[in-house]
Amino acid sequence: MPQNPQLNKNGELQHLLSIEGLSKDILRHILDTAESFTGVSEREVKKVPLLRGKTVCNIFFENSTRTRTTFEIAAKRLSADVVSLNVNSSSQSKGETILDTVDNLTAMHADMFVVRHSQSGAAHFIARHVAPHIHVINAGDGRHAHPTQGLLDVFTIRRYKPDMHNLRIAIVGDLLHSRVARSEIHALTTLGVPEVRVIAPKTLLPECVDRMGVQVYHDMREGLKGVDVVMMLRLQNERMSGALLSSAQEYFKCYGLTQEKLALAKPDAIVMHPGPMNRGVEIDSAVADGTQSVILPQVTYGIAVRMAVMSILAGNTE
Amino acid sequence: MPQNPQLNKNGELQHLLSIEGLSKDILRHILDTAESFTGVSEREVKKVPLLRGKTVCNIFFENSTRTRTTFEIAAKRLSADVVSLNVNSSSQSKGETILDTVDNLTAMHADMFVVRHSQSGAAHFIARHVAPHIHVINAGDGRHAHPTQGLLDVFTIRRYKPDMHNLRIAIVGDLLHSRVARSEIHALTTLGVPEVRVIAPKTLLPECVDRMGVQVYHDMREGLKGVDVVMMLRLQNERMSGALLSSAQEYFKCYGLTQEKLALAKPDAIVMHPGPMNRGVEIDSAVADGTQSVILPQVTYGIAVRMAVMSILAGNTE
Amino acid sequence: MPQNPQLNKNGELQHLLSIEGLSKDILRHILDTAESFTGVSEREVKKVPLLRGKTVCNIFFENSTRTRTTFEIAAKRLSADVVSLNVNSSSQSKGETILDTVDNLTAMHADMFVVRHSQSGAAHFIARHVAPHIHVINAGDGRHAHPTQGLLDVFTIRRYKPDMHNLRIAIVGDLLHSRVARSEIHALTTLGVPEVRVIAPKTLLPECVDRMGVQVYHDMREGLKGVDVVMMLRLQNERMSGALLSSAQEYFKCYGLTQEKLALAKPDAIVMHPGPMNRGVEIDSAVADGTQSVILPQVTYGIAVRMAVMSILAGNTE
Repeated sequence: MPQNPQLNKNGELQHLLSIEGLSKDILRHILDTAESFTGVSEREVKKVPLLRGKTVCNIFFENSTRTRTTFEIAAKRLSADVVSLNVNSSSQSKGETILDTVDNLTAMHADMFVVRHSQSGAAHFIARHVAPHIHVINAGDGRHAHPTQGLLDVFTIRRYKPDMHNLRIAIVGDLLHSRVARSEIHALTTLGVPEVRVIAPKTLLPECVDRMGVQVYHDMREGLKGVDVVMMLRLQNERMSGALLSSAQEYFKCYGLTQEKLALAKPDAIVMHPGPMNRGVEIDSAVADGTQSVILPQVTYGIAVRMAVMSILAGNTE
Repeated sequence: MPQNPQLNKNGELQHLLSIEGLSKDILRHILDTAESFTGVSEREVKKVPLLRGKTVCNIFFENSTRTRTTFEIAAKRLSADVVSLNVNSSSQSKGETILDTVDNLTAMHADMFVVRHSQSGAAHFIARHVAPHIHVINAGDGRHAHPTQGLLDVFTIRRYKPDMHNLRIAIVGDLLHSRVARSEIHALTTLGVPEVRVIAPKTLLPECVDRMGVQVYHDMREGLKGVDVVMMLRLQNERMSGALLSSAQEYFKCYGLTQEKLALAKPDAIVMHPGPMNRGVEIDSAVADGTQSVILPQVTYGIAVRMAVMSILAGNTE
Repeated sequence: MPQNPQLNKNGELQHLLSIEGLSKDILRHILDTAESFTGVSEREVKKVPLLRGKTVCNIFFENSTRTRTTFEIAAKRLSADVVSLNVNSSSQSKGETILDTVDNLTAMHADMFVVRHSQSGAAHFIARHVAPHIHVINAGDGRHAHPTQGLLDVFTIRRYKPDMHNLRIAIVGDLLHSRVARSEIHALTTLGVPEVRVIAPKTLLPECVDRMGVQVYHDMREGLKGVDVVMMLRLQNERMSGALLSSAQEYFKCYGLTQEKLALAKPDAIVMHPGPMNRGVEIDSAVADGTQSVILPQVTYGIAVRMAVMSILAGNTE
């Protein structure tokens, strides 16, 4: 049986590549550690010395200012030295392979790689290759597997709805192109959430949806009834017209979250979105900025979760 | 009466958006604080811990390496963590609004935004929106309102000519497209300067020039007679030909500062320029690099002024 | 006799512009200092406070993520504040000259410039211009004079083959376009290496090769016989076809380093390459990743050498 590529020989988290493969204990350890980091960002001096003298390399083979910023802030609050590389233009064009880039940075005694790449499996590929004292964090690959996004979503749910054994959660939107959603379903189930619903048109559901242990709804009003959490997914611009959807307007009518539809959920239901939002496409501004929205707290917790992941990895060196 | 958007409820400086609206006391407080910071950059260890553990976000919706560098150096000398975002390409193209970007960074517990945007009022717009513990500094918007540039100019004048009640100052060049100049006229008048002259062709003067309390000259030699300070303005490349000016050569002949014209000012007059200079267009190299030039000291004082503004804002949190 | 532009009045290293002009004593001092820095990058906390409160400006008039990263990591491990500027787009396009850029950064109390420029002599030009307390490091100009690359190569050789008076070194490839190679021949001779061979086709040898004190081989198998060190040079993509070479395949056949050719060198010979490698063009992957390769240690030592150069320069202020 092949070893889980995320764990070291002692069964500790060595890399964070995907939520799949994380045990309930490791998931809980990350969430509990993140809990302790939420305080750091509220202090007068937002800095702890846990990664002082460590070198964190953000290697972005695909540009994403937003994601790079979250990791950069998290690493700096841990006192790490941060070096950011956009590799699309430079070395790549000189014919240097990904692994040569990684080997070079390792030779410079980098400690941690935060990797974003447009190809699925790029972070796994790098993790398989690096020396045992190096840590790799997947910051999005291919169809945007993005484990820290999944973890911060789970963290947010647990913060607002601590009794996870009594939750009804609806995930709404483009399940087909969102690997985050599938990871989260796995994590939520692992942590004991009894009922996860997915709400989407047939064209935006993956074939394997039957085997995911979820209830499928095509009627949003039906699916939102009585839920505690509404997780909206981002609709990629490139899906808004063409074969899969008739139009953004039509999508909003059927699957956009409005106050009126939200009223069908529990009165204290929370609304989540991974950002950046397409206001008026998958979510109405009144809901996005409304009292039930926890979209900005998600961003806040994202820093705590990333600090937690970085500090746990840095501590798990064989 | 609407509250001054730059001040908090206690009348303290909350944001720096424009020089207009700053009282004589606040102007003096900034200049005096900057005075104390001029020493920091001359020390062996150019660093004070005033902003340690604070996160300063440079959000540049318009690229300007030069301006970004000055704020980055100032923030780092105050020991802040600095995160720089060029937002033209990334999130903006994903349809995220300016305010969503700002809300996200606020959720990450950013403390201060240094904003540059091509549209007038962008920094005001952001300042109106943010939570009361956040500070916004305008690093240039629209026709380059640029309050720290105005402040460093005033600081430089006060350093070289401390008796501001006895000064004659000439501002030369493209007043029409320079909001810095108009802000400075306001600041200089507020600080007691009795005589400000503007020297420009009619096509480069704003219509409201009559109401600005200045003396207008179209003949540069006439206007420079007996002045203590010559402030040259930058001529934007795009003005150098076309409807407003016949040619760069013609402009230099009439409004370019040469040694010969400078000789008409007082013998100890100082020469200023906000940079970057068009040598041979608005200023001759012999003057720019001459003994009366304080163009490089302006840059030096720019760091002290930006450190002063940042530390004052950080201290004025309700 | 004009003073060596790299030395201050006390004969100490003020700038690092090229290996030529460095005495045996200075070369040894750099190498010995680098020796002491190799330990820093292996510590738990990879940081020393030698440049704390100093401002290091990376001015890259030509993009090179790889080189910028090495200097950024070295400066941060010395605790400097690092500001990186890509100057191709911004100020340059506003007509600001190189010297105005440098003067501005000097006015902001920058302490050290790391300069990369496509034109030969750019770093020398800047060094001649700056004030005596400023230090300039050439990070590549023109045909890639790149003294820290040369120094790290010499450092690597000395580490693996300390008895330099008994070495036979072969440099293989495009000598014509590599100023690094010519600098290194000079440094190696200065440090007492008795035999340096160059192996290249006639079209890739400089005319002056006869005066360089080296033995010239056109047959790689002949040239590799009995050598202690094989230094491969990078073949620029633009040379791979056209007037100078028939094809990359043909080049590999004649001058590419394979296990079979390497077997002609001494059994404990080391293999070097400055990176980034063209695997399958100038070097076979089996050799690049083989037991005799010290290509990644070169990268590691590159950090130590750059830390050494920066700390020596910072200490040599008149």
